[in-house]
Amino acid sequence: MKAYEKSKLNTVKRGANRATYDVEKINNILDAGFIGYVSYTYQGKAIAIPMAYCRRDNTIILHGSNANRMLTSLLAVKEMSMTVMHLDALVMARSGFHHSVNYRSVTLFGTAKKIEETTDKNAAFLCFMEHMMKGRWDGIREMSQQEFDRTLVVEMTIETASAKIRDVGVADEPEDYELDVWAGLIPIK
Amino acid sequence: MKAYEKSKLNTVKRGANRATYDVEKINNILDAGFIGYVSYTYQGKAIAIPMAYCRRDNTIILHGSNANRMLTSLLAVKEMSMTVMHLDALVMARSGFHHSVNYRSVTLFGTAKKIEETTDKNAAFLCFMEHMMKGRWDGIREMSQQEFDRTLVVEMTIETASAKIRDVGVADEPEDYELDVWAGLIPIK
Repeated sequence: MKAYEKSKLNTVKRGANRATYDVEKINNILDAGFIGYVSYTYQGKAIAIPMAYCRRDNTIILHGSNANRMLTSLLAVKEMSMTVMHLDALVMARSGFHHSVNYRSVTLFGTAKKIEETTDKNAAFLCFMEHMMKGRWDGIREMSQQEFDRTLVVEMTIETASAKIRDVGVADEPEDYELDVWAGLIPIK
Repeated sequence: MKAYEKSKLNTVKRGANRATYDVEKINNILDAGFIGYVSYTYQGKAIAIPMAYCRRDNTIILHGSNANRMLTSLLAVKEMSMTVMHLDALVMARSGFHHSVNYRSVTLFGTAKKIEETTDKNAAFLCFMEHMMKGRWDGIREMSQQEFDRTLVVEMTIETASAKIRDVGVADEPEDYELDVWAGLIPIK
C-alpha cells in the first residue's frame, strides 16, 4: 500500500495543504519518534497518555504492566489511536496571526490486540529495544520468565492514518513584508 | 490551593511513587512546555491532537480556526483533558525489563469555554505570544479585526491534575549490578 485511503475519520480539514496520507512519509515520522500519545476513553472522558513505542511494518508495539489501566482499556475496546509530533521550529512572523510552528505530526487509527505467544512477544521486546538503541538487546541480561510474564504487550495494526507537515518559512500578509519587524525560524532541538 | 485533590480520575496507579499533585510542580512542567496533547472524542473514538498552549493561573489557553473540529467538539462537551510530557533521558539498564525513561509529565482535566469578550481575547493572545517569545507582542504588527474574528480562543479551567516525574538513575535488580553491561542515562535535548 502506497497511501492510506481518506475517510471522514482521518481526512485533515484544517491546513489540508499540509496533509499527507503517504505510508512511507508517515512511517518516517513514526521511526523518528520514541514517545506517542495514545488516546483512550475512561469514564466517558478522552485521555491521552504518553507511551514509548516502536513500529514494525504497519503495526505499533506498546508495552506496560499487566495492570496498566490504559492498555487494558484499549484491549477491551479493541481499537485505538496514537499521535506523534516532532516540533522542528518556531515560525516568528510579522503579525501575531501568522506566527506558527514547523512540525511533523502523525495520527494513527487502528485495532489493538494482546501479544501472548512467546516468539511474538520476544520479537516485540527486541523491536522495542532496537528502536531505543540499536544493538542493545544482545549485550544485556536475558529476560526472566517472571519479567516476561509481568509485561503486557499490545500491538496496534494501523488501519488508517494521516500526517501533517509544515516545513516552510514565514508566510506573512503581502503588505507586511515591508514592516520593520524581525521575522524568521527558530529551530527547536 | 497547594495540591489537587486525588480522585478516581486523576490518581496515578502505575508508578505511584513518581506521582505528584502539587500545583506548583505541575505549573512548572506546564510552563516548560509549548505543545500539549488535547484529547477529544470524535464518532466515539478518543483522539489526541497536539496544540500550542499557554498557562495563566489555573487555566490553559488554546486557539485555532473558528472551524477547528477539535476545539468546537471541546466547546460542545464543555470539558477537556490535556497531557504534556518532557522526555529528559533514556535510562539504559542491565536488563531489558529495567530500561526506562526520565521524564516530567502532566495530565490535566477541566472545563472548556469560549473566550469572546474583546479584552479577554486580547489578553489571551498576549499570554500566548509572550509564552512563545517574551517581549514579542510589542514589536509585531497589530492584529486586524478580521484576524481577531477568525480566531477561536478556548480557555480550559484546570479542575484536577496529576504529574509523574522520573528523575533518578538506573534501577537494576540487586544481583545485576555485577554484570559486565554498560548502564547509564542518555540525556535528551
